[in-house]
Amino acid sequence: MVDIATRVYNHKWKIDPIVRSLIDTDFYKLLMCQTVFGKGPGPRVTFSLINRSSSLRLAELIDEGELREQLDHIRSLSLSRGESTWLRGNTFYGKRQMFRPDFMEWFENLSLPPYHLEKRDGQYELTFEGSWPEVMLWEIPALSVLMELRGRAVLKHMGRFELEVLYARAMTKLWEKIERLRTLPDVKIADFGTRRRHSFLWQDWCVQAMQEGLGDSFVGTSNCLIAMRREVEAIGTNAHELPMVYSALAETDAELAAAPFKVLQDWQQEHEGNLLVILPDTYGTREFLDRAPDWLAGWTGIRIDSGDPVENGEAAIAWWQAKGEDPRRKLMIFSDGLDVDEIRDLHDRFAGRVRVSFGWGTLLTNDFRGLVKEDALAPFSLVCKAVSADGRPTVKLSDNPSKAMGPAAEVARYKRVFGVGEQQAQPVRV
Amino acid sequence: MVDIATRVYNHKWKIDPIVRSLIDTDFYKLLMCQTVFGKGPGPRVTFSLINRSSSLRLAELIDEGELREQLDHIRSLSLSRGESTWLRGNTFYGKRQMFRPDFMEWFENLSLPPYHLEKRDGQYELTFEGSWPEVMLWEIPALSVLMELRGRAVLKHMGRFELEVLYARAMTKLWEKIERLRTLPDVKIADFGTRRRHSFLWQDWCVQAMQEGLGDSFVGTSNCLIAMRREVEAIGTNAHELPMVYSALAETDAELAAAPFKVLQDWQQEHEGNLLVILPDTYGTREFLDRAPDWLAGWTGIRIDSGDPVENGEAAIAWWQAKGEDPRRKLMIFSDGLDVDEIRDLHDRFAGRVRVSFGWGTLLTNDFRGLVKEDALAPFSLVCKAVSADGRPTVKLSDNPSKAMGPAAEVARYKRVFGVGEQQAQPVRV
Repeated sequence: MVDIATRVYNHKWKIDPIVRSLIDTDFYKLLMCQTVFGKGPGPRVTFSLINRSSSLRLAELIDEGELREQLDHIRSLSLSRGESTWLRGNTFYGKRQMFRPDFMEWFENLSLPPYHLEKRDGQYELTFEGSWPEVMLWEIPALSVLMELRGRAVLKHMGRFELEVLYARAMTKLWEKIERLRTLPDVKIADFGTRRRHSFLWQDWCVQAMQEGLGDSFVGTSNCLIAMRREVEAIGTNAHELPMVYSALAETDAELAAAPFKVLQDWQQEHEGNLLVILPDTYGTREFLDRAPDWLAGWTGIRIDSGDPVENGEAAIAWWQAKGEDPRRKLMIFSDGLDVDEIRDLHDRFAGRVRVSFGWGTLLTNDFRGLVKEDALAPFSLVCKAVSADGRPTVKLSDNPSKAMGPAAEVARYKRVFGVGEQQAQPVRV
Repeated sequence: MVDIATRVYNHKWKIDPIVRSLIDTDFYKLLMCQTVFGKGPGPRVTFSLINRSSSLRLAELIDEGELREQLDHIRSLSLSRGESTWLRGNTFYGKRQMFRPDFMEWFENLSLPPYHLEKRDGQYELTFEGSWPEVMLWEIPALSVLMELRGRAVLKHMGRFELEVLYARAMTKLWEKIERLRTLPDVKIADFGTRRRHSFLWQDWCVQAMQEGLGDSFVGTSNCLIAMRREVEAIGTNAHELPMVYSALAETDAELAAAPFKVLQDWQQEHEGNLLVILPDTYGTREFLDRAPDWLAGWTGIRIDSGDPVENGEAAIAWWQAKGEDPRRKLMIFSDGLDVDEIRDLHDRFAGRVRVSFGWGTLLTNDFRGLVKEDALAPFSLVCKAVSADGRPTVKLSDNPSKAMGPAAEVARYKRVFGVGEQQAQPVRV
């Protein structure tokens, strides 16, 4: 067992890398990366950090030198032999050789491209520009670095025992959540908390606690490095960046309207089974389902990542039923700002009607709310998104306008093309 | 920092000594031992284990083989060079060479005498018979072994993360106590928790937490090994065994009546300052003070170890005042079953009127109440007492008849000789 408090204590005076491996990232990034890589040269894409919690002035809290050191360290990483062996040899989602030899060879020789960092108005402007499969791999490590450096900035003022007690409290807090979750019959929960984790060691502890506390109800982690080390399933399918980039590259409104489905057509050429999971909310879940081609109803499941989860879950069930599909055979993955109460309520409502599963993120791996003065370790809403492709801005509408992004004119155009009307804003918790 | 959960986990399949040093004992034992040693051959004394929590059937919980292994290990211990150097060279209570060369030489060559162990009616009968200075050193390690083996018997059924979370909860619980205690202005607290500690490692953690959390309000520990390693004061004065053995050896009622004062006469030939602390309750605090000679009022302080602490504290103040002493210069040490509420109330009442100090024992080093199923780690009341001297039974009355001990006829005689009337029984918490 790792003595987290001691390690954190040691971090105070010695640089210790936050991201220690190229596979210390979400599994779905690698799946998407292979898909994008397989389509040839492709567009130039820009990823950009966006701090939705703008009142948290990150550039005043985190030292620029430390941030550069961590980012430079990530650029120095390459796939280790053991990591490569695992990616090539492990079974993912029941499939051997999930990663093709041509992709693996490329990945084995990869170093992440340069970053651009500036300070502006108390925030860091951090962008990554380059070929899509390369820059997309920056998203998760960049977020992890910012999250953990923010944590370290707060922790460095604490004493040795204050730290130990802080982690004791955080452990107790998580364990109490796990004790509540294991009362839910046959619940299925995965760790989706890499990007906004408190720290690598803490995420690793959380995964082990889930393993012991939840048993078979813990279905895996999105973090490849932890999945490898702890011998659990690597979990994940696909993300908004696919439809966002495809849509940005559309030449006409008709192409734009078709783009989200084109993404999934490409996806199903590579994948099957539990990897055939629709992420419908990029430009509105209802509008997506209304316009979805019949073949999509044959996919295994759906992921609900914004909006009202009950409404969207019911909409998906109604859609499957209308298409003559049996919802009880379908997978429904909830992944938006979950904590124990939300998991319990959604489980109570949907278990038995569909195959429910939960991707538990920030409030699994970073729930330090209420544990230090002024709540200085409370999680905040940081994202790193594809903001343009071949010079064209991307747009995301989501089911929650608080999560929307893109230039106003483009947002208006997308709303028109996708038939999205009034949306109800919800606070973005994490 | 020690990862306690891991260590406890390892203990499950590997014998690991509970008592790892002859000075893993209370400081006052060594002071008393030197006093007793200095008086020549002296009586043969028997110490015996007494489980006041008789509903806890220790012999069914603790394996006899394991218990013997631990006790045998203690018999194999002798003073290490570093320990000897510390005892000889350290300053205790402001005094250099507290331990005389003749005593140190004897101690350096000491191994503890044999023990006698039998099972009877679900309990262990554990006795130590021999020369007083030798057998008296069994008390604390014997108690520590029983307490920790009982804990291990409960812990061995727990998983790795259950253990880690158990300690996380215990740490959180103690830290919250410390946070409350440090709001008390100028409070002085020492660790008196060796004998009924949850484990050695846990006591060591508690001491470190007190060091960091309480700063100057933490005045030291009764545990010599921890005092040495953590470089804090070793704390303690004298105990009931002195008047109990002196009294048992008295030939007449008059000698018996004088015995408790004879003890203190002998004591003050060796000690001064803050070591001149009266422990008045062996045969009733009020009766002791009523009959105490004038010179005793010149002593530095008093320790309140049974009965109603407010009543006894007020009685001591009234006694000092009647003797023309200024209570504000006197030390008043409370040490009976304290926890935060008791410390706060006593501090509120007596601070400023006397120099208050607290010896915090079982509920510092073994408060695992409410942390496991059926409260199986709750502390219990185990003692190890001098039960006879040269074949004569010892008697203790205390201010709480629940803590009294000795044959009924002798108890009646002592009550008569010391003028002790009705006493009010109070539950013995720990």
